[in-house]
Amino acid sequence: NMSVDCLSSTTLVRLPGLIDCHIHLREPGDEHKEDITSGTASALAGGITMICAMPNTKPPLTNERSLNLTERLYQKKALCDYGLYMGATADNALEASSLASRCVGLKMYLNVTYGDLKLDKMESWMKHFENWPHDIPIVAHAEGQTTASIICLAELFNRSVHICHVARRDEILLIRAAKLKGVRVTCEVTPHHLFLHQNNTQYILDYYGNSNGFREVKPNLQTESDCQALWENLDIIDCIATDHAPHTKTEKSLSDTAPPGFPGIQTSLPLMLTAVNNGKLTMQQLVDKMYTNPKRIFNLPDQDDTYVEVDMNHKWTIMDDETLLSKAQWTPFIGMPMRGAVHRVVLRGEVVYVDGKVLAENGFGKNIVDLRKNSKLLPSLSIEQT
Amino acid sequence: NMSVDCLSSTTLVRLPGLIDCHIHLREPGDEHKEDITSGTASALAGGITMICAMPNTKPPLTNERSLNLTERLYQKKALCDYGLYMGATADNALEASSLASRCVGLKMYLNVTYGDLKLDKMESWMKHFENWPHDIPIVAHAEGQTTASIICLAELFNRSVHICHVARRDEILLIRAAKLKGVRVTCEVTPHHLFLHQNNTQYILDYYGNSNGFREVKPNLQTESDCQALWENLDIIDCIATDHAPHTKTEKSLSDTAPPGFPGIQTSLPLMLTAVNNGKLTMQQLVDKMYTNPKRIFNLPDQDDTYVEVDMNHKWTIMDDETLLSKAQWTPFIGMPMRGAVHRVVLRGEVVYVDGKVLAENGFGKNIVDLRKNSKLLPSLSIEQT
Ligand SMILES: [Zn+2]
Ligand SMILES: [Zn+2]
Ligand SMILES: [Zn+2]
Ligand SMILES: [Zn+2]
Ligand SMILES: [Zn+2]
Ligand SMILES: [Zn+2]
Ligand SMILES: [Zn+2]
Ligand SMILES: [Zn+2]
Repeated sequence: NMSVDCLSSTTLVRLPGLIDCHIHLREPGDEHKEDITSGTASALAGGITMICAMPNTKPPLTNERSLNLTERLYQKKALCDYGLYMGATADNALEASSLASRCVGLKMYLNVTYGDLKLDKMESWMKHFENWPHDIPIVAHAEGQTTASIICLAELFNRSVHICHVARRDEILLIRAAKLKGVRVTCEVTPHHLFLHQNNTQYILDYYGNSNGFREVKPNLQTESDCQALWENLDIIDCIATDHAPHTKTEKSLSDTAPPGFPGIQTSLPLMLTAVNNGKLTMQQLVDKMYTNPKRIFNLPDQDDTYVEVDMNHKWTIMDDETLLSKAQWTPFIGMPMRGAVHRVVLRGEVVYVDGKVLAENGFGKNIVDLRKNSKLLPSLSIEQT
Repeated sequence: NMSVDCLSSTTLVRLPGLIDCHIHLREPGDEHKEDITSGTASALAGGITMICAMPNTKPPLTNERSLNLTERLYQKKALCDYGLYMGATADNALEASSLASRCVGLKMYLNVTYGDLKLDKMESWMKHFENWPHDIPIVAHAEGQTTASIICLAELFNRSVHICHVARRDEILLIRAAKLKGVRVTCEVTPHHLFLHQNNTQYILDYYGNSNGFREVKPNLQTESDCQALWENLDIIDCIATDHAPHTKTEKSLSDTAPPGFPGIQTSLPLMLTAVNNGKLTMQQLVDKMYTNPKRIFNLPDQDDTYVEVDMNHKWTIMDDETLLSKAQWTPFIGMPMRGAVHRVVLRGEVVYVDGKVLAENGFGKNIVDLRKNSKLLPSLSIEQT
């Protein structure tokens, strides 16, 4: 059971409030899959106190009107802190850049995935690279050789680029070569691409019924050798980001038309803690990839008095009962034995999660844009508060 | 009629022997489509005295054995001078590089086309970039965003790359941006992508029967706007290269399975002369793109006492009768009115073509590798010969 009773445990470790720089809540538009409340509750239960939300909502966040709408919804509902991505379209380069200061980054979809935001022409890519401010990140869904394409464009326009959800050996080797050459590229990897591949996931179908829809995700699950390459190049991976992309069990059971995506924000930290316990990475690396690096890459503000207490020895099994807070109500990690659990989460001095219970109220989460302003306006106050 | 009687003409112009850095003869393996004799005869009739032949033959030129075989065939048969490309495969990076000094360049197939030489993984691309000598060109079939991918790789490995048959607005704009940034990228465009697009080629089907196979070519014919973009960016185009890719009329009439490719080596210069007469480019630009630039990019040797006499005022119409020397025996430019024709071609002091007749004998053509050696070994002799 995912709720944690830590009375019997002696190995509590305090981590900073963790950051997930790539998640999809489904509000506005598809609140039956996930809404801001359920998604951010899920985040807190997973030890994540700050999220960066992707723009492929309905309507997509691609202009001032949808940004206004989405900002208002998050302000009323979010339980954890958040930044919002602007979505790049073939014709919004100017409007997008005029709104950049209200966003955590620009998302460019360059391969087929969920939603209609794919940019087909490099001419559009170039317009965004020309216009989007250089001090705010551009992140790209750019699989396979598209990884090299977008790195080329970033170089031509003298700017950095962040590669989303690297999944293949070929991609991570290219990014390694680029980093060694001094190219300003950063990247993230999802827990599911680290732990799951085509040949160790039959259990998902066995559990949820035989619809292959439950293994549908973009980028696809790759081979075991791709997984290995990610682990072997851990030093090249800047961030662990979940690409939390919830769809309901009913939707995922439609084999031919199941939308791609896995929920993952609540299970990410437990999976990575288990990996620490299994010697697959160090706690320092975990903190680098789930806090320090995303904070630096996305220029995210401090969260005062914020931390996560994890119990490194708590053994439990991932279940899809009521402890799983996403509206997706399923998980591709079903049945996995964990060692390491989130015990308590404190955000700005308030206990927002403890032992299975989310205590934060709607609207307690802040927009990172406002947090940045406050920390600039009130430097002495924020020092006194700590 | 393609044969030219120039007695009545007064406007003969002497050009250097022209270079086509991208052609496919079909020997060894598919001599019914084109053999070395018919292909090089076609070249001479088109004012081309030096060709660079692609490796997607049967067997493909990807190792020492096939290089030996192909060298022997050309030595016996070629009517004009030639260089041979090595084909890159997923596992021949070491063998290929050991043979580089016998080749004019390395060809990397990165998109679907005729033959089985496609390289799927960037890991293979990287192996070739690591191993192939930096002073011998790498040329890439890299369409659309793959253009950016391969430019990225070239940059990571500190070397140049030549982009084959640029066909799209998106590609030429990217190459423009890269050149402006100082990236060592060069490119070629085919006459068919300059003159033909999806909406001005119904006449081909009307003439050859309604099989769309006669418009099948890789890269595909694009839109009128793509054609325009090529003309607008003429300053960015280094070479005119035909991508001469002959298939028989019978093969092209199989609509669903017609192999992609157009013959073009004999019609390239007339088309470009006509464009000069129509004010679409200058004669200087023609010579740059059909001689000076390919000679420099591929480090091609001088051909002493070699020139092409063209008649700038000769008016004629492209026909597919016996004057068309390719075994393909058809042309996508059928019926096009020309102004400008090849009158006479002299190669190393010998008249090899005059007024419709090829006079060179099998084996008169030399391998550029041998020409390079001779010009290095015998500098005084070759000076005396001129
Ligand atoms: Zn515990
Ligand atoms: Zn507890
Ligand atoms: Zn994505
Ligand atoms: Zn995503
Ligand atoms: Zn004439
Ligand atoms: Zn004549
Ligand atoms: Zn090609
Ligand atoms: Zn070709």
